[in-house]
Amino acid sequence: MMEKVNLSQKFELFTEHWSPKIVGELNGQHVKLAKLLGEFVWHKHDVEDELFFVVKGVLQMEFRDKTVTINENEFLIVPRGVEHRPVAPEEVWVMLFEPASTLNTGDADSELKKEKLDRI
Amino acid sequence: MMEKVNLSQKFELFTEHWSPKIVGELNGQHVKLAKLLGEFVWHKHDVEDELFFVVKGVLQMEFRDKTVTINENEFLIVPRGVEHRPVAPEEVWVMLFEPASTLNTGDADSELKKEKLDRI
Repeated sequence: MMEKVNLSQKFELFTEHWSPKIVGELNGQHVKLAKLLGEFVWHKHDVEDELFFVVKGVLQMEFRDKTVTINENEFLIVPRGVEHRPVAPEEVWVMLFEPASTLNTGDADSELKKEKLDRI
Repeated sequence: MMEKVNLSQKFELFTEHWSPKIVGELNGQHVKLAKLLGEFVWHKHDVEDELFFVVKGVLQMEFRDKTVTINENEFLIVPRGVEHRPVAPEEVWVMLFEPASTLNTGDADSELKKEKLDRI
């Protein structure tokens, strides 16, 4: 409680990809950190908007009709209901803001699903 | 809609201090950018938790019983109901994440209050 969070220190605590870690909670929302590499699964979140802030690397966010390239110190908000697929040709570190209810794979049936997230 | 936000580009759009600008909205929350310099007013938010992420500079967050120094790429969540005072001995750039209902001065009666925030 009331402890600051240093992003670099937190990112040193894990190496796995596509496995978000909870680093903060406020107003029913979670702040999460994740390392991404490769292609994720197409999915959408029916009731949650999702913010992707790129801390390191370059994230390609694919939509059905376009791709948005998100560089370091840039963020993109993916509105609820919009199908998307994060793609990281090289490793990317991201900070996520989203409701505590958000499941990483949204409506997709995928082995990439993470139901119990660690807090670090 | 679905446009990425580049923090550096947004920070170039304004110079005034203690005047948060809205740069994103999701799940009833706002993402805001602000430049801080000097001492703000003591205040609290009765129903809103507030996240301060330091993009540039060093922020001193004063509480009644301690001060937390927040450096670049660190964030602090101030829980609802907790009195705090941001102090920036030199200019600090911050990204805020908080409910759309949040007033910058909380419960304080201050001329620093900003009721209508610009979206940039």
